Amino acid sequence: MIVLKIGGSVITKKDRPMTVDEENIMRISEEIRDSRVHPIILVHGGGSFGHPIAKKHGLPDQTAPKQYSTGFSETHNAMVMLNNIIIDSLTSKGIPCLSVTPSSFIITKNGRIKNTNFEIIRRLFDYNLTPVLYGDVVIDSLKGLSVLSGDQIAAKLAIEMKADRLIFGVDVDGVYTLDPKLLEGDLIETLSIKMLEDELKIGEATTTDVTGGMLGKLKEAKKAAELGIMVHIINASKKNVLYKALKGEPVRGTILKK
Amino acid sequence: MIVLKIGGSVITKKDRPMTVDEENIMRISEEIRDSRVHPIILVHGGGSFGHPIAKKHGLPDQTAPKQYSTGFSETHNAMVMLNNIIIDSLTSKGIPCLSVTPSSFIITKNGRIKNTNFEIIRRLFDYNLTPVLYGDVVIDSLKGLSVLSGDQIAAKLAIEMKADRLIFGVDVDGVYTLDPKLLEGDLIETLSIKMLEDELKIGEATTTDVTGGMLGKLKEAKKAAELGIMVHIINASKKNVLYKALKGEPVRGTILKK
Repeated sequence: MIVLKIGGSVITKKDRPMTVDEENIMRISEEIRDSRVHPIILVHGGGSFGHPIAKKHGLPDQTAPKQYSTGFSETHNAMVMLNNIIIDSLTSKGIPCLSVTPSSFIITKNGRIKNTNFEIIRRLFDYNLTPVLYGDVVIDSLKGLSVLSGDQIAAKLAIEMKADRLIFGVDVDGVYTLDPKLLEGDLIETLSIKMLEDELKIGEATTTDVTGGMLGKLKEAKKAAELGIMVHIINASKKNVLYKALKGEPVRGTILKK
Repeated sequence: MIVLKIGGSVITKKDRPMTVDEENIMRISEEIRDSRVHPIILVHGGGSFGHPIAKKHGLPDQTAPKQYSTGFSETHNAMVMLNNIIIDSLTSKGIPCLSVTPSSFIITKNGRIKNTNFEIIRRLFDYNLTPVLYGDVVIDSLKGLSVLSGDQIAAKLAIEMKADRLIFGVDVDGVYTLDPKLLEGDLIETLSIKMLEDELKIGEATTTDVTGGMLGKLKEAKKAAELGIMVHIINASKKNVLYKALKGEPVRGTILKK
């Protein structure tokens, strides 16, 4: 079983609020369909749907006090809009799927998913349905509200559902020794947890080696990798990379290994 | 606390598939806002969004085997579409609300909701958010799939959340001794559980005294009424009736009492 997280930067135009990248969404839907991999759980990020709206309302990364109710509903509604477009695209390409709403069944504790029941997601496989989840705003038992990243959901699902692989489809080729968007760095093709721990230390200290987004992703990915799940970070913005990764064919990217 | 179920026949045009009654939706949103009742849980039916699509796929009332996956997703997606319109309307009228997806957190057993966790709904009140649920297709632990009515959700919520009142907003004035759409009958203004049990017997035998829809509603309502929750069946298609009912003002309708 594969858990596939598609980054918000791949499916939306990051510089234009509430704008999808329709071409990428359609192509990714086709690549998932053509790979014929099953079962698969899809989780997508928010990109220009989630983040700007959360930010507009001053929603911090993790938690928020009671006055953030409008931010809660507006951010969630924007994510539902984006999710509807993804669901429509998958359906139009012949992939039977069902949206599963994180804020309707996940409560976090201090920003982390605890004791969540994934029974419904498990049951959807019996119907050949691909569950589709997304980064969302959720109730937090300690802090009230919490912005829950698709990365955390994907890693948690991979662990709880005992996935074989966890694939992060992003808009860069993988993990670089330096941020690939800023400077020419070297792609790290295989990253051990030991190496990652060192990277994370550097990242936390300077945030130059791994960018914020990638750093968060790697922190989540590490938890799955420690349990023996193969984590693959690939470029889903480039044609056929996701297709090949899903098929298990060799592809440029970073593999995180225990 | 009030649980308000709005029938699909009020918010959609029953004779036209996938068509909302925008005027009713806007008016009902205004009446809820103007009543200033809080907290309130809103549950809506499917009307011409849910039923025709479920039926097209041969989805039976209660359960369905594995081949119904397309029916599952299509019916759910239609309900999400309708729910988005309701959420937009409530939001535009200044009611902070959050959609809660039944299929994402409810599993039924032989068509009935069991041991469901309503913690998230409870927590939404802390944020002054009105939870909005709807009739949906859900996973059933015995039969695979189940069409879960908004009526059952509303009654279950009223019971679990210890609601003061459960209001069913429908497109007739209440419970009649004969189906009011077919023949001129007498409105039953106060219905005791004992009377209801006799009505249900007649209903099951002949389905003339209470129509299918009303019969199902009364079966669910009975469970709440038995626990002392006041159940009110009123005409939400008529202006200001819902507003008055929410305010607790006397209004034409049927009150179901223990």
